[in-house]
Amino acid sequence: MNILITGGAGFLGSQLAARLLKRGEFAGQPISQLMLADIATPQGPLLADARVRSQVGDLAASLPALMTQPWHMVFHLASAVSAECERDFGLGLHANLDATRALLEGLRAQAERGGPVARLFFSSSVAVFGGDAVLPLPEVVRDGTPPLPQSSYGTHKAMCELLVADYTRKGFIDGRSARLMTVSVRPGRPNGAASGFLSGMLREPLAGQVSNCPVPLNTRVALASPDSTLRGILAVAEASAAQLGSRAAINLPALSTTAGEMLEALAQVAGSEARGLVSQTPDAGITAIVGGWPARFDHARASALGLAPDPDFATILRQYIDAHPDAVQLPSARQRLGWT
Amino acid sequence: MNILITGGAGFLGSQLAARLLKRGEFAGQPISQLMLADIATPQGPLLADARVRSQVGDLAASLPALMTQPWHMVFHLASAVSAECERDFGLGLHANLDATRALLEGLRAQAERGGPVARLFFSSSVAVFGGDAVLPLPEVVRDGTPPLPQSSYGTHKAMCELLVADYTRKGFIDGRSARLMTVSVRPGRPNGAASGFLSGMLREPLAGQVSNCPVPLNTRVALASPDSTLRGILAVAEASAAQLGSRAAINLPALSTTAGEMLEALAQVAGSEARGLVSQTPDAGITAIVGGWPARFDHARASALGLAPDPDFATILRQYIDAHPDAVQLPSARQRLGWT
Repeated sequence: MNILITGGAGFLGSQLAARLLKRGEFAGQPISQLMLADIATPQGPLLADARVRSQVGDLAASLPALMTQPWHMVFHLASAVSAECERDFGLGLHANLDATRALLEGLRAQAERGGPVARLFFSSSVAVFGGDAVLPLPEVVRDGTPPLPQSSYGTHKAMCELLVADYTRKGFIDGRSARLMTVSVRPGRPNGAASGFLSGMLREPLAGQVSNCPVPLNTRVALASPDSTLRGILAVAEASAAQLGSRAAINLPALSTTAGEMLEALAQVAGSEARGLVSQTPDAGITAIVGGWPARFDHARASALGLAPDPDFATILRQYIDAHPDAVQLPSARQRLGWT
Repeated sequence: MNILITGGAGFLGSQLAARLLKRGEFAGQPISQLMLADIATPQGPLLADARVRSQVGDLAASLPALMTQPWHMVFHLASAVSAECERDFGLGLHANLDATRALLEGLRAQAERGGPVARLFFSSSVAVFGGDAVLPLPEVVRDGTPPLPQSSYGTHKAMCELLVADYTRKGFIDGRSARLMTVSVRPGRPNGAASGFLSGMLREPLAGQVSNCPVPLNTRVALASPDSTLRGILAVAEASAAQLGSRAAINLPALSTTAGEMLEALAQVAGSEARGLVSQTPDAGITAIVGGWPARFDHARASALGLAPDPDFATILRQYIDAHPDAVQLPSARQRLGWT
């Protein structure tokens, strides 16, 4: 089967690609081609695999070239992120809404000319949720909680969920959407996102650098590890339409934890020197933004697919350390891990 | 102020125009121009009013011409209806999603070049609601019930609600969306819509013609009269953003009644001969479609704006008769009304 991953050079896209290549099959079918479509060129060893192709460029503009061959499975992960959409309203609509619509139209044309009815996984986000004075965010967010986006990014995700469901209802694709949770611990460099500290305040101390926790320690957040997120994507993508039972988007599982518990896990796993590298200088702006995010989820539909949240933050932290041993540079942390 | 009504030649659009012209003002400002944009030419006496202009053609294609002047208030009622969207998927997306987006972009450009930030009323629909095995439609639909459209028309309406809210959040427009209920009694000729009998089984007997009730008499439906619908549109359009309190769409009030109660009202108002002209030949298809529609609403937000449902169906029927006396042709009905 031919698989297309949009956003295939990104953090989750490239890890998803590596996982699919290692398995060699998807939904019981051998993978003959894996196309990574992205505005960036894929990095690392992926391109060395004979099954892998790459299409670099704007997704909407790339679609005529991409659709010259049939696709059986599409993981649609490409997206302009929240801050980009707030900075450039038109760019956000183009990258998120227009590109998704062009992709769906390409797959509809594929089916209508007698090609395969592609299965499509759409990567939605918890950013579809929000609350206001009239319709406050409930304490626990469920699969049936009404989306009330408070950002353009969340607006686009909610709109595309609806579009994917309607193309599916019409039989043009076999689509399904899942709302991804905030992913922690992300590797790499600090970024300007409001959620950046949820990875940075762990990653930086492990690398021997100072970091800051900008929110009160009792601030509650909902997180998922990269591994848990990838397992969620694959489970939803491989489930049959009957198993899903609804065209509505599924909330992936999230661990509900607090900033304080995350830092306790850092001390427990990497030692008190690592913990000591994290200052606690409050940032009212970040505290307000993060405080508006859902922090507890009931993920009944994901549970029915066999998915569960990460058990605790120490487990998430150990996953990061195992996956990125070179990123642990603090001598006392390496010693505590038994690496010296 | 300059007011634009899209769908201004339609049933609700032309009645809204007549009401605005009679008032002469909107939100305290005198109406200097009222533009009726529609694919059809406005009928009746509207065009004789010196304040009225007309733009006939596809809305998306008309927008460059329309946007050469500033708009202070837009009633966006134009829409491809449910059956059209199911028949021609691309046409539905063009007429509902693309045209709405083009209108919103036109208003954003108006604001960004220093023109007025237009107020916009978006006419959404109860068709955004639906249920399935996993997320069943609740017995009572509330303002916060999650949309789960079961048609392309409902999908487009839900998507445009989200878009209107995001343009509003960004300050490009002052937008608000209200979900209109099934309107009864509609004047005119029978149409092929599944909801057609909800007007036809009253209108046809009054005209002295036979009609049919295709659903069991205990089938429950939610209805609003044209007058109640127009009052709802104007109240939501004139409310301040603070009064609305949320950018989420408002459900307009609906009378919850049954097919049997509607026919009892017909007998009560127009006599037993009129009632006798309505056969009861079941149609399984229509029964299934209408049975999937929400039939009871909690309209807390509309109530807070002073809106209430029609009190009973006999009142709705009398409203139709008063507005369209020439449509009552059955002699026994005219006699009962004291018109002979």
